[in-house]
Amino acid sequence: MLFHVEMQVNIPHDFPAEKADAIKAAEKAYAQDLQRQGKWVHLWRIAGRYANVSIFDVESVDELHTLLSSLPLFPFMDIKVTPLARHPSAI
Amino acid sequence: MLFHVEMQVNIPHDFPAEKADAIKAAEKAYAQDLQRQGKWVHLWRIAGRYANVSIFDVESVDELHTLLSSLPLFPFMDIKVTPLARHPSAI
Amino acid sequence: MLFHVEMQVNIPHDFPAEKADAIKAAEKAYAQDLQRQGKWVHLWRIAGRYANVSIFDVESVDELHTLLSSLPLFPFMDIKVTPLARHPSAI
Amino acid sequence: MLFHVEMQVNIPHDFPAEKADAIKAAEKAYAQDLQRQGKWVHLWRIAGRYANVSIFDVESVDELHTLLSSLPLFPFMDIKVTPLARHPSAI
Amino acid sequence: MLFHVEMQVNIPHDFPAEKADAIKAAEKAYAQDLQRQGKWVHLWRIAGRYANVSIFDVESVDELHTLLSSLPLFPFMDIKVTPLARHPSAI
Amino acid sequence: MLFHVEMQVNIPHDFPAEKADAIKAAEKAYAQDLQRQGKWVHLWRIAGRYANVSIFDVESVDELHTLLSSLPLFPFMDIKVTPLARHPSAI
Amino acid sequence: MLFHVEMQVNIPHDFPAEKADAIKAAEKAYAQDLQRQGKWVHLWRIAGRYANVSIFDVESVDELHTLLSSLPLFPFMDIKVTPLARHPSAI
Amino acid sequence: MLFHVEMQVNIPHDFPAEKADAIKAAEKAYAQDLQRQGKWVHLWRIAGRYANVSIFDVESVDELHTLLSSLPLFPFMDIKVTPLARHPSAI
Amino acid sequence: MLFHVEMQVNIPHDFPAEKADAIKAAEKAYAQDLQRQGKWVHLWRIAGRYANVSIFDVESVDELHTLLSSLPLFPFMDIKVTPLARHPSAI
Amino acid sequence: MLFHVEMQVNIPHDFPAEKADAIKAAEKAYAQDLQRQGKWVHLWRIAGRYANVSIFDVESVDELHTLLSSLPLFPFMDIKVTPLARHPSAI
Repeated sequence: MLFHVEMQVNIPHDFPAEKADAIKAAEKAYAQDLQRQGKWVHLWRIAGRYANVSIFDVESVDELHTLLSSLPLFPFMDIKVTPLARHPSAI
Repeated sequence: MLFHVEMQVNIPHDFPAEKADAIKAAEKAYAQDLQRQGKWVHLWRIAGRYANVSIFDVESVDELHTLLSSLPLFPFMDIKVTPLARHPSAI
Repeated sequence: MLFHVEMQVNIPHDFPAEKADAIKAAEKAYAQDLQRQGKWVHLWRIAGRYANVSIFDVESVDELHTLLSSLPLFPFMDIKVTPLARHPSAI
Repeated sequence: MLFHVEMQVNIPHDFPAEKADAIKAAEKAYAQDLQRQGKWVHLWRIAGRYANVSIFDVESVDELHTLLSSLPLFPFMDIKVTPLARHPSAI
Repeated sequence: MLFHVEMQVNIPHDFPAEKADAIKAAEKAYAQDLQRQGKWVHLWRIAGRYANVSIFDVESVDELHTLLSSLPLFPFMDIKVTPLARHPSAI
Repeated sequence: MLFHVEMQVNIPHDFPAEKADAIKAAEKAYAQDLQRQGKWVHLWRIAGRYANVSIFDVESVDELHTLLSSLPLFPFMDIKVTPLARHPSAI
Repeated sequence: MLFHVEMQVNIPHDFPAEKADAIKAAEKAYAQDLQRQGKWVHLWRIAGRYANVSIFDVESVDELHTLLSSLPLFPFMDIKVTPLARHPSAI
Repeated sequence: MLFHVEMQVNIPHDFPAEKADAIKAAEKAYAQDLQRQGKWVHLWRIAGRYANVSIFDVESVDELHTLLSSLPLFPFMDIKVTPLARHPSAI
Repeated sequence: MLFHVEMQVNIPHDFPAEKADAIKAAEKAYAQDLQRQGKWVHLWRIAGRYANVSIFDVESVDELHTLLSSLPLFPFMDIKVTPLARHPSAI
Repeated sequence: MLFHVEMQVNIPHDFPAEKADAIKAAEKAYAQDLQRQGKWVHLWRIAGRYANVSIFDVESVDELHTLLSSLPLFPFMDIKVTPLARHPSAI
């Protein structure tokens, strides 16, 4: 089951740079792990923004929320979830 | 799996009243049938508007979209779907 | 009398973690108490956000505001209240 | 129990003038009747717009929705309802 | 001459609690004084928010702005003023 | 007493051109009459739009609404009124 | 080069059903042809709406606009294009 | 003096196609004439929309409004004008 | 050449009061100087807000931006500029 | 390939002035270098705001994002990218 997820990252300017770097490294590892598991099926950068468009493939909304709320950057993110259905013209 | 659905109905003023009545009657029958099946678990009127807040319980997003796009009033509706997860404080 | 309540929690990044934890624990206890009393009849997590959709069943708007403004997380919340009426197609 | 109601009236330009006049006359009679009953406690025109701000005093949200959806101009209105509680500084 | 005023209070989380309490006490006294003078004719709490809807009765816009900008909480408020005219259906 | 008024004109494309011309001519005469009376003290075109920014000088909000709702183009306008006070730095 | 495209279809209620059906059939054939060519790489339905989220893979913005403006449903669509770059955490 | 102008064209679906074609042809001739005169210095299509971003170079706001309101498609356009100044980092 | 300028002032609560007072005094002197020069032709307070509506009369957009960006309060302001043209009904 | 880029700069008031000056100087050098390379083809100040409208000419969206995310002021900017296609009326 696919969900379209847009994530905008907002790290405050006075947040310690080292902590931010550690969180970003953890985020990257986590994102790549979920991609390898086939849960995070697409991940694209939105040009000009610290934001991404992603497609998740999960068993349930509970699983999706667990995955998203476990993102290391979750406390700094605005996330918008859009449920996707099969399109009748998709081949 | 639960989805929060807000439906706003907009029937144009020049739409024939008889047709509108027939569609509304079909809508009512359809809505009650889905409620009896346990798919449409809550249905509330938003005070002052020709709109509702609903909770659907479905197996998948595809099923949800099939149910919603089969609503007799679907061509006249603006629909906003929000996926719901279990809340850790819910009992 | 039912009210649809959407709560978005925004805790500043520089707020002490211990205080935040204590407030969240108090919030959970409070939320579960109100659920047991039948005042807070539904509580769902909005997927991907630190936010919920809730349904309250109260005697009056004054009671609703008292309940909401007593939430331990109230100072950190954006709350939107929508009054709900019976829907003519609800069974 | 008080509710703040903002009503914006939008009558299409191609709607027959006589019908519109009849509906407006019925609206006026209805509004004045509800005022006399003490249900519609305040009714003000928003300067420069075909819109009003009103305060309703009702027993329940169901009663409020029944009153509003029975307005002769209801099919032409955008209505926004805000529930009001007692203010601690009100005398 | 009536004006509809919506006030939203936003006190930063790191603002000293004692100062905030002193300002709120001054605000309450000021609001009650204006109510007794017949300038602040209605004051309602918006359910679920630290906000109010008010009706002011003043001689001029200058007087209104003087009253509002003298509110002890004014530096912490977002205020929206809507001028009200007599409604032809008001009794 | 000054009010800032922004008027946006929206005449439907299928509205008869002759009627529109007659209304526009009446609007112009009316606007110039109010300017000569000193009620409509400024009238500027917003570049690129069929819209204007105006300043009205009236005795009351009731007078303002009477003037605005008597505009021949009023049924085709979106109007936004902002009350103006004396600025402490104005000379 | 990837572009995220959101398309919302708005067919007026008084548009002849046969014409609409013919346009939709042409749209489907066109969409499937572009998918087979590898230009339209993903096509998903947004649950509850007559809308889709798509990913296009094109050589240039000019090619993208040519493809989109040739959609049989183009005159009935609101389209929003977001350029996508490679994400540093994508595998 | 430069102005940034965004134009969105909205031709109603029931507008006669021949008339629309004649207006579009006149628009094209007019746009090309202004470009040759050096008034309309840039004209770009916004990908996926019947809209453009343009830069005008004019002597005054009055001249700009005269040029824009003389566009054959002006009655069908939403236009947004943004005044541009020299940027201190521009070479 | 006239421009409509709306300025909203947002001074952070933790900004030193003395510095703020000095900036405000400089702002007042600057504003009055520009008024005396005939550049800042109108200056009105928006009722209930720390904001103003102003009309500037300048030779060019560059001059306008120079004047605005030199405002002592400029770093604390949100400014919106709207170019004004002569209205055909203005006398 | 052209992209329209709007950049809004938001430097927090408590950010050290020296650091800000250093970043701005680096930004200027970087912007002028990209202009000389023909990548950043237009750069205009939006009157009254710490913002610009720019046109970039790049080989790909990846190149565009690399250029934008390397801006010294990037962490303080809100950036909105709009892809531009050739306009059929452009000469």
